[in-house]
Amino acid sequence: MKFLEERIRKDGRIYPGSILKVDSFLNHQIDVQLMDQIGEALYQAYKDRGITRILTIEASGIAIACAVARFFGVPMLFAKKSQSMNLGNDVYVTTVTSYTYKKDYQVMVSKRYLGPEDHVLIVDDFLATGNAILGLADLCRMAGATVEGVGICIEKGFQNGGKLLEEHGYSVTSLAVIEEMRDDGTIVFRS
Amino acid sequence: MKFLEERIRKDGRIYPGSILKVDSFLNHQIDVQLMDQIGEALYQAYKDRGITRILTIEASGIAIACAVARFFGVPMLFAKKSQSMNLGNDVYVTTVTSYTYKKDYQVMVSKRYLGPEDHVLIVDDFLATGNAILGLADLCRMAGATVEGVGICIEKGFQNGGKLLEEHGYSVTSLAVIEEMRDDGTIVFRS
Repeated sequence: MKFLEERIRKDGRIYPGSILKVDSFLNHQIDVQLMDQIGEALYQAYKDRGITRILTIEASGIAIACAVARFFGVPMLFAKKSQSMNLGNDVYVTTVTSYTYKKDYQVMVSKRYLGPEDHVLIVDDFLATGNAILGLADLCRMAGATVEGVGICIEKGFQNGGKLLEEHGYSVTSLAVIEEMRDDGTIVFRS
Repeated sequence: MKFLEERIRKDGRIYPGSILKVDSFLNHQIDVQLMDQIGEALYQAYKDRGITRILTIEASGIAIACAVARFFGVPMLFAKKSQSMNLGNDVYVTTVTSYTYKKDYQVMVSKRYLGPEDHVLIVDDFLATGNAILGLADLCRMAGATVEGVGICIEKGFQNGGKLLEEHGYSVTSLAVIEEMRDDGTIVFRS
């Protein structure tokens, strides 16, 4: 999993308040070759779990989830963040609290595309408090689907999301876990 | 380009008010094999234009733009729709009027990732009024970048977006152009 740590060290930028910007390759500008590496790494971690759907949340999870879905050869489904006029009412909905934006928002998926027969791998770019992932897992619960695992690009190990998800019984694979970001720009990864 | 017309006929659903739902394969649940077909078709259309960036807008353009970027071997950049606390102020911003949601919103890209040296292919899932695409083209203009073309999955030919973009001098390639959607569910494509 070292490839992502190396890329973060090379191109990540640290701002005060433990903000890590990776928008040159992960969540604004997207390096599609890196997406393929991420897709393969998460495929290797969960290839024996009978995965039928990759589930993420708009917007920055989409590129990653597509790359993962290509390796599994299954559809990708992205949860939408607010009531879309074109989505219809036939949806599962739950509420997520955003740590970054300090507000609640609703996430939803169509009932057509998630059901009791599904074995789901949830993926996202960041794991911090775990609220977004728990929201996606809640949508799976409503659908009767099984969450087989959670695949994360960058986990902020100094926040409690990873621990929280494991307490809920989820298998979590994070390609890079940051233990500490220092003001001098040093990033310490979990070994 | 017939593959997308065939998929729309097979899996698209028509609702009153000329609303076409393609959320089983294009903009909610994503068929990643179809994305590869779309990526290759738009690559074939613009492969001789020296493309350096694929530009789209969150959220439903991201999956398509990633697939296109893989064929070109260049980065994908997605414009963000509202002021993100983590994006910083070093951005190009313009205003887009949404026909679907009847409101204005701001779109922005970081100045770091778009510049005068760039030759840009803009891509999106739908073309209707053309407002979103003109907004992306405006961001390119601010950056001094050259718009080499516009690649669209589904153009609503009964709205004026395609004509408007061509009047602005843009090369537009739409993989499926819908001339008419009838209440009985019939879809008429431009031949």
